[in-house]
Amino acid sequence: VRRKSNRADYSVDRVQEVLDEALSCHVGVVRGEWPIVLCMAHGRDGGTLYLHGSAAAGMFRDMRRGRKVCVTATLLDGLVLGRSARNHSMNYRSAVILGEAHSVDAREEKLRGLRIVTEHTLKGRWGQLRHPTDAELAETGLWRLSLRDASCKIRTGPPIDPPADAALPVWAGVLPLTTSIGSPIPAPDLPPRVVPGPDVRSLLSS
Amino acid sequence: VRRKSNRADYSVDRVQEVLDEALSCHVGVVRGEWPIVLCMAHGRDGGTLYLHGSAAAGMFRDMRRGRKVCVTATLLDGLVLGRSARNHSMNYRSAVILGEAHSVDAREEKLRGLRIVTEHTLKGRWGQLRHPTDAELAETGLWRLSLRDASCKIRTGPPIDPPADAALPVWAGVLPLTTSIGSPIPAPDLPPRVVPGPDVRSLLSS
Repeated sequence: VRRKSNRADYSVDRVQEVLDEALSCHVGVVRGEWPIVLCMAHGRDGGTLYLHGSAAAGMFRDMRRGRKVCVTATLLDGLVLGRSARNHSMNYRSAVILGEAHSVDAREEKLRGLRIVTEHTLKGRWGQLRHPTDAELAETGLWRLSLRDASCKIRTGPPIDPPADAALPVWAGVLPLTTSIGSPIPAPDLPPRVVPGPDVRSLLSS
Repeated sequence: VRRKSNRADYSVDRVQEVLDEALSCHVGVVRGEWPIVLCMAHGRDGGTLYLHGSAAAGMFRDMRRGRKVCVTATLLDGLVLGRSARNHSMNYRSAVILGEAHSVDAREEKLRGLRIVTEHTLKGRWGQLRHPTDAELAETGLWRLSLRDASCKIRTGPPIDPPADAALPVWAGVLPLTTSIGSPIPAPDLPPRVVPGPDVRSLLSS
C-alpha cells in the first residue's frame, strides 16, 4: 500500500514532459572505476537530447564517440510530511536516460543543437541573439543522445501513513515546491535604452 | 576573461553550504559498464553525508560496502542571458563529492542518520514525529559517505559579453531563480483540529 504513490512510467510523453520542464540535468559517466556526475544544460529535439555545459566541458573533454552516459533530470514538486520518518518523502518526477553520447561536430547540427539548448532555457531567445561565429561554434562542446532508453520515476499525492498514525497530533501533508523567477538584473554594460524583449517578458509573466 | 565568473572552490565551508541548502542530490554509481544516476535525499553531520531514498533503494540494493559513488548537489541561482548563445550560462553552485559509500546498519547510527536526513528536509520535524519502530528502521536504506574528497563549482555574476556585443539592442542580464514553498496541502486523513507545527510554520514564513 505504502508504495502506491511511487511508480515507474515508461511513456515517452512523460519523459519528454520532465525533460522539457527541467532547467538542467545531471549527467553521469564512468571514468576508470569512478562515476562522475555533473550538472549540464540540455534541450530536446524530438527523440534526441542535446547536452551542453561549459563547466562540464572540461570534465567531458574526453567524452568520446559512443560514451556511455546516464542523464537524470529531476523536478521536485513537494515535501511529503508524514507522521513518522519512514513516511516522509518527496513528490518528484525524475527522468532517467541511458545511452551513448556522441560529440556533435558538424556545423549545421551544432548550430541546430545550440539553438535547441538556448530555446530550452528561454523560448524566443535565439531570435534575439547575435548569430554564433565559426570560432564560437568550434569551441562549443555539444553532445547528442537518443531518448530510446528512457524512463520516469514519479511520486505524487499525500503522505501514506498507517491508519493508527492518523490519530497522532502531528500535521501531515504536502508542502508544494515551485521554481520562481525574480526581478531581472540588467548587465552592468547594458545601455539604458535596451529593455527586456518578448522572450524575457513572457517568462516573467508566466 | 570570459571564464572569470566560473571558478572551482575547494573550501569545506562552501561545499557544506551547498549541501545544506540543496533539498536533494544526484548520486552516481557504476553498474557494469554503465553509470547510473538517481535522485536521493541527504543530510550532513559534520564531515559525513548521509544518503537516503526509497525510490533509489531498489537500484542501490546492491550498494555494497565501499561502493564508489559521486554525489552532486546543484543549486541553480539564475539564468545568465548574454547577447550570443556562446555567452548564455547559468549561475549555479554545484558540490561534487567522490567517495566510498557504506550501508548504515547499526541501529544507533541508523537512527541518527535518519534524524539528520529528516531534519535536513525540515528543521524541527524530528521532534514532532512518532519514533521509528525497529521494523521501520530495519527496512530503511541509508548510506554514509565522507566529505573528504569534495569540491564546488560556482558561477556568479552577470553575462560577460565581448565589448562589441554590448552595443547590440538585446537585453542582457540575469534572471534570478529561487525555490518557493506554496500553501500546505493537508493530508486527507488529517483530523481538522491538527494545525501545522512550528517546523512547518517556520518554513512558510522564511
